[in-house]
Amino acid sequence: MSGVAAMLREIASIGRDDARGGFSRAGYSDADRELREWFASHAEARGLDLERDRNGTLWAWWNPSGSTAKAVVTGSHLDSVPGGGGYDGPLGVASALAAVDILRGRGVAPSRPIGIAVFPEEEGSRFGVACLGSRLMSGAIDPARALALTDREGDTFASVAERDGLDAAHLGADPDRLAGISAFVELHVEQGRGLIDLGEPVAIASSILGHGRWRVTVDGEGNHAGTTLMGDRRDPVVAAARMIVEIRDLARRTPDARATVGRLEPVPGGTNVIASQVRFWIDIRHPDDVVTAALVSEARDRILAAAAEEGCRADVREESLSPTVDFDLGLRETLRTSLPGAPELGTGAGHDAGVLASAVPTAMLFVRNPTGISHSPDELVEDADAEVGAAALADVLRDLAATTSDAPASAANMMAR
Amino acid sequence: MSGVAAMLREIASIGRDDARGGFSRAGYSDADRELREWFASHAEARGLDLERDRNGTLWAWWNPSGSTAKAVVTGSHLDSVPGGGGYDGPLGVASALAAVDILRGRGVAPSRPIGIAVFPEEEGSRFGVACLGSRLMSGAIDPARALALTDREGDTFASVAERDGLDAAHLGADPDRLAGISAFVELHVEQGRGLIDLGEPVAIASSILGHGRWRVTVDGEGNHAGTTLMGDRRDPVVAAARMIVEIRDLARRTPDARATVGRLEPVPGGTNVIASQVRFWIDIRHPDDVVTAALVSEARDRILAAAAEEGCRADVREESLSPTVDFDLGLRETLRTSLPGAPELGTGAGHDAGVLASAVPTAMLFVRNPTGISHSPDELVEDADAEVGAAALADVLRDLAATTSDAPASAANMMAR
Repeated sequence: MSGVAAMLREIASIGRDDARGGFSRAGYSDADRELREWFASHAEARGLDLERDRNGTLWAWWNPSGSTAKAVVTGSHLDSVPGGGGYDGPLGVASALAAVDILRGRGVAPSRPIGIAVFPEEEGSRFGVACLGSRLMSGAIDPARALALTDREGDTFASVAERDGLDAAHLGADPDRLAGISAFVELHVEQGRGLIDLGEPVAIASSILGHGRWRVTVDGEGNHAGTTLMGDRRDPVVAAARMIVEIRDLARRTPDARATVGRLEPVPGGTNVIASQVRFWIDIRHPDDVVTAALVSEARDRILAAAAEEGCRADVREESLSPTVDFDLGLRETLRTSLPGAPELGTGAGHDAGVLASAVPTAMLFVRNPTGISHSPDELVEDADAEVGAAALADVLRDLAATTSDAPASAANMMAR
Repeated sequence: MSGVAAMLREIASIGRDDARGGFSRAGYSDADRELREWFASHAEARGLDLERDRNGTLWAWWNPSGSTAKAVVTGSHLDSVPGGGGYDGPLGVASALAAVDILRGRGVAPSRPIGIAVFPEEEGSRFGVACLGSRLMSGAIDPARALALTDREGDTFASVAERDGLDAAHLGADPDRLAGISAFVELHVEQGRGLIDLGEPVAIASSILGHGRWRVTVDGEGNHAGTTLMGDRRDPVVAAARMIVEIRDLARRTPDARATVGRLEPVPGGTNVIASQVRFWIDIRHPDDVVTAALVSEARDRILAAAAEEGCRADVREESLSPTVDFDLGLRETLRTSLPGAPELGTGAGHDAGVLASAVPTAMLFVRNPTGISHSPDELVEDADAEVGAAALADVLRDLAATTSDAPASAANMMAR
């Protein structure tokens, strides 16, 4: 049995980002391809059947009983945010492989197929839409819209997907594949301090905060920094700066809200040039979808007002919006039985599990992060906690695959409030 | 005689920037090399002697009388800001070539050598220090400091210069070359609306506004945009946004001041990531160097205060600082005689002529820009005005090279206040 920590060390040199620290493993990049090859070699070493579906998700199947029942699926993603940590995504993939090893080591023969899924472009760092693979599979994004997305280089997702061996004409909803899944359980590093405060290594997820991304484009007038009088300027950098402060103040006044601007691009971006345009992205999250909508509406009003006051024009466009997801109640009950005493925690982070929850009974496990920091090189999982997490995942998979009756977890129990 | 407009059309496809509009011709880029080859071919076609000095400046010499007197030099630069116009720099180079054609066409034989200089990295778009070539030549920047400058890719100026054929060990002050110059006259597109308002095609420059660049680094704490509560954040994007608004307000309250933030880079720059660091650059200009210093000091205080209020740390570092330059009084008198009726205008833009003014009697001519906009694709010079500018430059060169007495323009007349 090769441990989780040992597997993660195998990929510790892939996609390192010396400038930002941590890893930059954008979807469909060379680093991403290397990581997929690493996963494929692990699947092959275990005799798992590997396939890549038409939306680019990798699947490794363990089905020793040759069952034709609906599958139990686990897995996560391998891409990262720019300068991200080494656990967000890969921990879930390595833990899935380790869980199969654990079950085999115990002589457990599942009555259902067990699948390990690796979803592409979960972070949305390249094309701006998080969970692009699971959104395509579940029909949450129109394939035509996805294909037209562009990365920072101006390359469309259509051209990048084709270069990566996908057929752009066959991307999109895959209800047959989803219908073959009885439950999806994603293990993930916790991205907050919940488990630190509780003193526990593993939690069951209760819900994912509703969240969305909006792209703001502010158009002003490019000009010379030295020759243009202050009173003659229509400077989109100043307008964007005012918007960013207003958005933060708005979120700070709204209990449980989070609003973030982490990506901002002045055009042309020269030191001695008043920019002609600024593009920035707002990430907004709140447990109550009605409050999220109200926050976005108020942010939009303030953005348009600040633009007008600076002689600029602003456009606010929704790039993605996911309602708050309460994970499947029946499945959570099963997990509680498999992991007695494990606490339950909500999260503000989005996940493929949250997207798939609209189509499949879905649950998540969180593993303690002793820094509480994620999307940063400071993200951490202790080796011992990683092994506890993999063992917990193995217990959950064992129980979910123990019988082939498809009763307990049902779409009726899935609530997207 | 090939006209200025025709010459500029020859380079209209070099370094085009379809994303930003206009041109992106960074120093030492492929586009920059193509432009230098274009200049070399024009020098060769005219039988001018071409040389490249040890700081990377190109010189094309016309010396039909074989004179050993001090030279009259004109010229400008070929690099651009990102997404800049097609006249800032190249107009002065093409006009210099055209002026030689005009003098030859008139049968004028200068008594002094006439040189056309093309200075590298004038905009500082690549290494952050404007007028890098003329600063090196005049000793205004220490070669060791210049060699350690880095571009956005992290490449040092030392490595880029070596790849471009320069010897890093031989960069720096070149007093012998400067001592061989009796006068330097740079023709440049006007970067404001002065000539529009006056209804004139050409002006004589009176002064260059003092200006400088400061790099601000704001360090916060990178974290997940969804899981980090608003009260737990140390977000450098919010801190930088507050600083940018404060700096603008400060400049707006200070008569004749200009302050600009046109370049800003959040690190890592992901949509769902609270940045760990933001770097941005401030361009500050004011005719009174004492006021500039006070502005910088107050901006620094506000930056440090805003950083502290947001739980961040900030560092403000001067990258370049040039005092206000009044051009050589004797040389301006000569230009007034050569160009009777031409108005005189100050400018807020920095130029190699401003740097060289500390070592050589220096003057400038401005050509009307009907949009008043510069450092933007909207920058413009009408073809007819470009030809009037070249003819004016020819008249000036004719008069400056008519005799070999070195009296009128003197360092004593150069004032850097």
